[in-house]
Formats: sequence, C-alpha cells, structure tokens
Amino acid sequence: MNTVYFDHNSTTALKPQVLQAMLPWLSQTAGNATSRHVYGRNVRDAVETARKQIAECVGVQASQVVFTSGGTEANNFAIKGIAANLAPTQLLVSAIEHPCVSRPAQSLAWHGWKVQSIGVDDQCVLDLADAAQKLSTRTGLVSVMLANNETGAIQPIAELAKLAKAQDALLHTDAVQAFGKLPVDFGALGVNAMTVSSHKIGGPVGVGALILDKRVDIAPLLHGGGQERGLRSGTENVAAIVGFANACELAAASLKTRSETQAKLREQLETGLQRLNAVIFGQQAQRLPNTSFFAIPNIEGETLVTALDKAGYAVASGSACSSDSTEPSHVLLAMGVDADVARGAVRVSLGEHNTEAEIQGFLQALQQEVKRLKGLSAVAA
Amino acid sequence: MNTVYFDHNSTTALKPQVLQAMLPWLSQTAGNATSRHVYGRNVRDAVETARKQIAECVGVQASQVVFTSGGTEANNFAIKGIAANLAPTQLLVSAIEHPCVSRPAQSLAWHGWKVQSIGVDDQCVLDLADAAQKLSTRTGLVSVMLANNETGAIQPIAELAKLAKAQDALLHTDAVQAFGKLPVDFGALGVNAMTVSSHKIGGPVGVGALILDKRVDIAPLLHGGGQERGLRSGTENVAAIVGFANACELAAASLKTRSETQAKLREQLETGLQRLNAVIFGQQAQRLPNTSFFAIPNIEGETLVTALDKAGYAVASGSACSSDSTEPSHVLLAMGVDADVARGAVRVSLGEHNTEAEIQGFLQALQQEVKRLKGLSAVAA
Ligand SMILES: Cc1ncc(COP(=O)(O)O)c(C=O)c1O
Ligand SMILES: Cc1ncc(COP(=O)(O)O)c(C=O)c1O
Repeated sequence: MNTVYFDHNSTTALKPQVLQAMLPWLSQTAGNATSRHVYGRNVRDAVETARKQIAECVGVQASQVVFTSGGTEANNFAIKGIAANLAPTQLLVSAIEHPCVSRPAQSLAWHGWKVQSIGVDDQCVLDLADAAQKLSTRTGLVSVMLANNETGAIQPIAELAKLAKAQDALLHTDAVQAFGKLPVDFGALGVNAMTVSSHKIGGPVGVGALILDKRVDIAPLLHGGGQERGLRSGTENVAAIVGFANACELAAASLKTRSETQAKLREQLETGLQRLNAVIFGQQAQRLPNTSFFAIPNIEGETLVTALDKAGYAVASGSACSSDSTEPSHVLLAMGVDADVARGAVRVSLGEHNTEAEIQGFLQALQQEVKRLKGLSAVAA
Repeated sequence: MNTVYFDHNSTTALKPQVLQAMLPWLSQTAGNATSRHVYGRNVRDAVETARKQIAECVGVQASQVVFTSGGTEANNFAIKGIAANLAPTQLLVSAIEHPCVSRPAQSLAWHGWKVQSIGVDDQCVLDLADAAQKLSTRTGLVSVMLANNETGAIQPIAELAKLAKAQDALLHTDAVQAFGKLPVDFGALGVNAMTVSSHKIGGPVGVGALILDKRVDIAPLLHGGGQERGLRSGTENVAAIVGFANACELAAASLKTRSETQAKLREQLETGLQRLNAVIFGQQAQRLPNTSFFAIPNIEGETLVTALDKAGYAVASGSACSSDSTEPSHVLLAMGVDADVARGAVRVSLGEHNTEAEIQGFLQALQQEVKRLKGLSAVAA
C-alpha cells in the first residue's frame, strides 16, 4: 500500500523478524502447554523463555508476568481483579485514561466502589496535588497511565507511587503506550501492577501481560483450566507470546536511536504545523517522542483524517481506539481544551520506518487540504 | 518431531492453508479495525468477512458472532455476562463441564446464584430427568456442553433446550469439542448462546467466539474501546480471526470423510484395546468419532502417558487442560467410575492426518509398556 502509516499508537505492523520467531509455532508443531508429552513440554519451555525475556525488559522476575490476550484484558484484569480482593473503598483513576481502564473502573461502582477521577493540567500532566488531596480519603486502588495515547504526555508515576504508598493504596499503571518507547522499569516506578501490550511495539495482536508486584492479591478474570498459575486460564497462545518477547527485545535494542530519530522528525513536523497555525496539545509536557496531537482551527478532525487518507496519509482523529464516536476527546476536555477546538484534533504517531520525506510530504498535503477545506467553508458561509 | 500426535482434543496444529490465509495479516499490513483510514478499513473488512463465514458454518447471522480470545474467554463471558443481567436464581451446569464453565459458574455463588449440577449416566450422557427435575426450581441459566472433551460423549442439547425453554431458563452450550467434528447448527440446537474455539479445529490459538441468540442480554466481560458492538473490547486480532474463519470452512468441507475415517481408526484402536482388557469409557454413548478414553486396570494414567511419550506417542491422561493436577477426572467420577479405575484414564484423540499404521504401532507400544509396567509392579509387590 502506498499510504504512509502515521498511526503507530493505534497499532504497528508485525516486524518481519518477529514473524520469523513466531513461524515455527505457527507451522508443524501442535502442543498445549499443560500437556505432559513432548509437544506440551516444548510449548511450555517456549512460553517460559518468553516470560523471562519480557520480565528482563521491565526489570522483574519471570513469576511476576501474567500473559493475557492484550492490553484491554490486562487492564480489566488489574482493575477488577485487584478490586475483587479488597473491601470496596475509593478507586482513583486519572481523567485521561484509555476506556479499557476507565470503563472497568466505572463498572465497579455497582460493587460499592466510589470511583473518582484525578485531573490533569492544560499540558495533559497529572495534577499531583489533586491526587494527594483525593488520597486523603481511604483509597484501595489507583490507576494512572504511564503515557497518554493521544498527546503522548508522560505521567509522574514514581511520584504518585510515593503518595499512594503513604496512604496504603495500591497503584496500577497502564504502560501500553510507554512500553517500547521509553525505558520502563517496574521497580523504579514503584507501582504494584503494570499493563503492557504486544501489538503497539511491533509484536503480534492478541497478547499482552500484566506485571504484578508479588504482594498483590488478585482474583482471576478468566476462570478455567488454571493456566498462568491459576491467574489466567485459557490455552497459552505460544506463537503470540514468543513474538511478544521477541518484539520486546527488539524494541529495547533500538530504543535510544529510535527515540532520537523520532524526536527530530516530530520537531520538523511541529515546526511545519505551527506555520499552519495549528494548536499542538501538550507540547510543553514531557511526551513520547513519536506522538504529535494537534488541531487546525475551524477544521473538523474527522474531515481532515478523511481528506488526508485520500491524499495518502493514515492518521487518527481523537483517540484511535474509540474513533467510531464523534464526541470530542475526553483527554482534551480534561485538559480544559474548548470542545470546538478539541473536535479538530488529529494525531500523528510515528514508527521506526517513517522518514523526513514523509513528514515533508505530509505537511504539503496538509497545507493543500487545509486550503481546500477553508475554501469550501468560505463558499458555504 | 517423530512423536505421533494423538492429542487433538487438547490442541491441533495450525493447517498450512490457514497459515497462508493469515500471513498477509501478519506481514506488511498494519491497521486497527476502529481506525478510519485505509488500513483500518481493510482490517475491518477482513474481520467482517470472517464473521460472515463463521456465522454460515453454524447457521446464524453475522451479527450474532462475538469474537473472543478463545473458548475459555467465551465461556466466562457467557456465564458471567448473561448472569450479570439476570436476577440471581438457580444456575445449572452439568457435572462434566470443562473447568472454564464450572469455575465461572462457581464464582457466581458469591453473587447470590445457587449453583447446582446436573448428573450424567454411566455412559457420560446428561440425565435429562435430573435436568427436568432441577429445572422445576426457578432457573436463570443452564450451561451444558455439546460434546465432552474427555469421553467425546455427545449431549442431548436439543432436548435439554426444550426443557429449559419451557421453564424460561436461558441455555448456553460449550461446543468447543463438537464444532468441526459434528455438524453444529445453532438454530437446530435451540440454545441461546454457544461457544466455539479456533485452535481445536486447525485454526490459530488465541481466538474463539460466542454465538448469541439476538434476544440474549449480555454484559461485557472486557470493557474498553467498545469493539464487537460494545460486547468485547480490545483490538481485533485480525490474523487470528481470518485464520479461524478459514479453518471453519476447511473443517466443514472435510467433515464427512474425516469422521468416517476416524470412526474406522477408532474402531481398530478399541478392538486392540479390548484385547488388552482396557475399560473404554462412554463406549455405548454417541461419541465424537475421534475420541477414545480408556484405562488399563492397575496402571496409572500418568505413568502410561509418560511411558507412551518415550515410546513416541503423545496422548493425554484425564483432561488435557488440567493435566497438571493428579486428581482423578471429575468426568469419570460423575459417571460413577471408581476413583482407582479413573486414575488409569488415558485419552487418544485423533486428527485428520493419523493413519492405520500409527494405530497399529500405538497398540504394539501400549502392549509392551503394559507388560513392562505390570512386570515392575509384580516385582515391587
Ligand atoms: C493507553 C492504552 N491502553 C490500552 C490499550 C488497549 O490495548 P490492546 O489493544 O492491546 O487491548 C490501548 C490501545 O489503544 C492504549 O492506547
Ligand atoms: C470442552 C472445552 N471447552 C473449552 C475449552 C477451552 O478452550 P480454549 O483453549 O480455546 O480456551 C476446552 C479446551 O480444552 C474444552 O475442551
């Protein structure tokens, strides 16, 4: 396909090397990790090797890694599973969480939890004073993401962890967007649970993991055959797990040069965007180096995404994972962005193969589309 | 590997044609079905085509198919999701369910459900009189599998559906083992929800589906971005979904000849087993044509599985999905089999590539191992 892919926060292409690592498990071999015969043992060994590799990438022991079907399941598991083993008190989530954190949290309101939201500033960074104040009410669990999927803004999780710990609240972080784009060390963050996902880092869709502090008492979300030490039943997806581990190692190896390159490309992109009078959301925050979230005044994000798609550029409007809705982004609203401005939001998220030429081409296409769309609305007015 | 694989009820090798169908989605393409750009549309189209194919295989409309990460998730979703939208009353499950049905059911006891078990006869067939009697108490949900994974015994689901309907109870069936081995028609069964899984029929691990009657009101188990019409959030696993649909079509096409061949092979196997004085469980029941579950008196199943593995045959002891435990099979105990006999249980489950020569080789190996093991125990005695 000739369309330039600028939507890597939504999903990434499977890396060819990762596919190579997966293929033996997608070909001749059959085996269920719970079986005692040689096929079962081979699968079990592959799963355990992958578990060690992923554990090393985030600085934990293998036994702390629970494989799931992806980030969504890991977040649901964390929120519902930890809450299930606590007496219902207050549950705190930030105002900028992905719906696969905020909706499971809301679902707990039915079970007696008081769900409260921690605000962010106008740069999309968690308001630690608000967190501290809310933590003065008895709180069982806090969940705040490590980096936001829309703006890329990085959150002060280590600081929040200290506040949570002082109040005996457990802390979960959704690191789906940060993992593979920033160094992520579970111990340094000081969290009790952390979600990672494979398909955002060049691994296959259909696998993720919840990393758990050994003291966390969590109830399974999927009951059954007792796989993953009883914490997540279901036949292990060995090919995907092997691919995930491989993608983690590749992402770790390329992290430094990749972030430098992407930071430069984004700088060029945003210089060009500013010439078009774009508003860039969270630009003053520490951000993921690959992410730029912006709006061109008076142009709908949806309209721009469609026009850019025709022009050969795949970008996202608002949050990619809920782009079927036309509501303005809840993240921008939480930042205090005016709803009309928020409706203009477009996200470019770079991957390791994007080039300067693609950025320049994009800026040209954008300029043309903006001119054309403004012309149309001038005629219509 | 030279070991003959006789454990197809546990998992099957991915078919080469299925892998070919998946590869385009594992290679160059990136895309998230919720995205509006061309990559997103391509993925969405592929997912919707697969949904139609699977729907046709079980005689429903595409909108009745909800993709999940596998059979375990679909069963958890069915039991917990349907129960969540009903006032707690009685929940009936059979005594021979897979743990990914019985354990979710047990978990509902905490939410006020009275969980009762329906018995089976000595051939592993549901006791309809017991079901009718228990249904006279107000019952919200019944879940009984279509075919048992251990004995292969086929259950009288259509009859049970009439009893359940008369009492206004919803009926779910776990068709994971039946699907692809028997013709399975959702409407003819008269159930309200049905679970199918991909990796048992030559498709990839990591995908399954819950088929739903349109009147069923079900709560999501995974909350988030709102995929699968809000019923199952999480980035769609397009490669796995495409592979699953492909495997369904291949299984449907080969169903008739495959079951005839397997029935013949099993006949040869069981003739040989009887010469070794084996007890064959559920032999009088209508069974899946590929499954034989037996015990050689006074030999532990575990011991035999290990010995046969060394001799080059991969078989299962008790239930493959919980073979880490050494308890006798709950299925055999429900059939009234003596615990000592049950501990001897070994399962052979054939796949489409198994041959007569493999059966004969297996019988020889078994005879030798039995002789050797009996000799050992004679010495020990
Ligand atoms: C911040 C964040 N968390 C979780 C998810 C969900 O991950 P998955 O697609 O693996 O279910 C996403 C995906 O968009 C995300 O951006
Ligand atoms: C009867 C039955 N139901 C459900 C399952 C679980 O399916 P999956 O492995 O896709 O989670 C199995 C697998 O062993 C099974 O035999």
